[in-house]
Amino acid sequence: MNEFSLIQKYFEKLTPDRDDVELGVGDDCALLIPPSNHAVAVSIDTLVEGIHFFKGVEPEALGHKSLAVGLSDLAAMGAKPAWFTLALTLPEVDENWIKGFSKGLAALANEHDIQLVGGDTTEGPLTISIQVHGFVDQAKAMRRSNAKLGDMIYVSGYLGDAGAALQQQLQQLNDDELNSEDIRYLYQRLERPTPRVIMGQELLGLASSAIDISDGLLVDLEHVLDKSGVGARLNLDNLPLSKTLKKINHKVAQALALHSGDDYELCFIVPPQHYAEIEKRFKGQVTRIGMITDDDGLYYIDDDDNLIELTGIGYEHFAR
Amino acid sequence: MNEFSLIQKYFEKLTPDRDDVELGVGDDCALLIPPSNHAVAVSIDTLVEGIHFFKGVEPEALGHKSLAVGLSDLAAMGAKPAWFTLALTLPEVDENWIKGFSKGLAALANEHDIQLVGGDTTEGPLTISIQVHGFVDQAKAMRRSNAKLGDMIYVSGYLGDAGAALQQQLQQLNDDELNSEDIRYLYQRLERPTPRVIMGQELLGLASSAIDISDGLLVDLEHVLDKSGVGARLNLDNLPLSKTLKKINHKVAQALALHSGDDYELCFIVPPQHYAEIEKRFKGQVTRIGMITDDDGLYYIDDDDNLIELTGIGYEHFAR
Repeated sequence: MNEFSLIQKYFEKLTPDRDDVELGVGDDCALLIPPSNHAVAVSIDTLVEGIHFFKGVEPEALGHKSLAVGLSDLAAMGAKPAWFTLALTLPEVDENWIKGFSKGLAALANEHDIQLVGGDTTEGPLTISIQVHGFVDQAKAMRRSNAKLGDMIYVSGYLGDAGAALQQQLQQLNDDELNSEDIRYLYQRLERPTPRVIMGQELLGLASSAIDISDGLLVDLEHVLDKSGVGARLNLDNLPLSKTLKKINHKVAQALALHSGDDYELCFIVPPQHYAEIEKRFKGQVTRIGMITDDDGLYYIDDDDNLIELTGIGYEHFAR
Repeated sequence: MNEFSLIQKYFEKLTPDRDDVELGVGDDCALLIPPSNHAVAVSIDTLVEGIHFFKGVEPEALGHKSLAVGLSDLAAMGAKPAWFTLALTLPEVDENWIKGFSKGLAALANEHDIQLVGGDTTEGPLTISIQVHGFVDQAKAMRRSNAKLGDMIYVSGYLGDAGAALQQQLQQLNDDELNSEDIRYLYQRLERPTPRVIMGQELLGLASSAIDISDGLLVDLEHVLDKSGVGARLNLDNLPLSKTLKKINHKVAQALALHSGDDYELCFIVPPQHYAEIEKRFKGQVTRIGMITDDDGLYYIDDDDNLIELTGIGYEHFAR
């Protein structure tokens, strides 16, 4: 396994050198010094070839995305990134692949001042597990369980773009209206998501709950509703759609915004006293899409003023 | 992936409920409260089916071993176990398998008061990554870089048993002298290694350096020598062999003790002022096998008083 441990060394030098790392890669354990008066937020995610990404995906984009997924979890808790570990299982040592992968990984790590402190590189089917560590004031951390009746529901950025890219790749998207720039934009959104790390930290003290949209708005928002014991009503006309998604069939675009994952935008819950501050501070970056209710589940109001339950409605139902 | 997230919930309840876990499994991140005045020691390890274990290995033993590997890294640093995360990739949801795996994992977790605080369960080829977290006084932590000229080299327990089990499984061990109890003992050592967690903590302040023997004594000890910029001489007659290993060809047993991995015993380095204390405190549990020198590499003295370099000598060379 010497070749594999060389890889580890190769990665090590690419990420920031933080003062709170007493001992990094290269011993039995890393030794880390967390700040006092903060909780350490940790999250681990795995990407498997053929399940989470297609075989042959550009390694630089994959390096970016592998870390972005974890950073997005830190963002959803409002935590400031600090350290990560990488468990990398590779079918073979392909230097070009490693170079590309580590380049994408390191660029994002440097942007967020997060240091690689340990890892394990083994032989096997291509699988990437990254654990991220960040710091957050535990009293302010945006837990899923804090949503309350009367709170407003917001999302960052645009929804459905990553899902549209996936549909396009599977040749299931009617893309007659899209030009090559649109297609590039959608793929960028799927393959190089932007974790909302800064926004997550800025939301601390303003938003009570947050989640990142990895599995789709409905599925992810339902985790918040379940944990908080509340319901919600969404205004579907307010779902934020990119210029590109506005060019495709509107029902399909809405369905993608509701159901498709991989956007890594934040969905967050704001209590009444902080509406004004949120609208001012994040003008143009966030959209109010609904409110927390005491309904049993997740609803929207259709064009005929009927209350329709969204819970359990799949993509196909909605997009037909 | 609902079936997969159910698994996560299933695992969650099996491990201890620690006071320093502010928020465990079930949110974007776990929130952990490390003690002040201690470093957090972290290590991540991956086990892949067909590489690190045979297809069809007993799931309970695999659950045990997956966590034991990480605990052994904490032991080698002298850290006290606290939390772990589990990234589990499964080809299918087989309830019996999960039950066995989680049983083995939970039994060891409870023994060491280490809590499962997060994870990710995904579909794909069977791969297990576990990250362990523990606490250690960073001034006392047994780093690989601390070995000095004149220090003594010790190991815990017996060496070569796990390697012998593997050779037996591959039908490459002459086991004519072994009875069924011997064979059971060897497999126990391979499949259910005992991480030396308590000993690791007790060595703090006495041993300057330590490493766990996962890849073989020579390979692992060389990491210490490299990091410390020293050499070593071993007394091969002192290599601790179990009753079982004493029954097989002596040269083969010595070669296994030097070269085979998976024993998860500790190899540690003791400065002169602590010899007596070590010999007294760990009587019968540890064996002095050599000393740190200013040689360039790793040597032993053969029966004719020649100094023979061990570095780079493989198993086959030695066992012939």
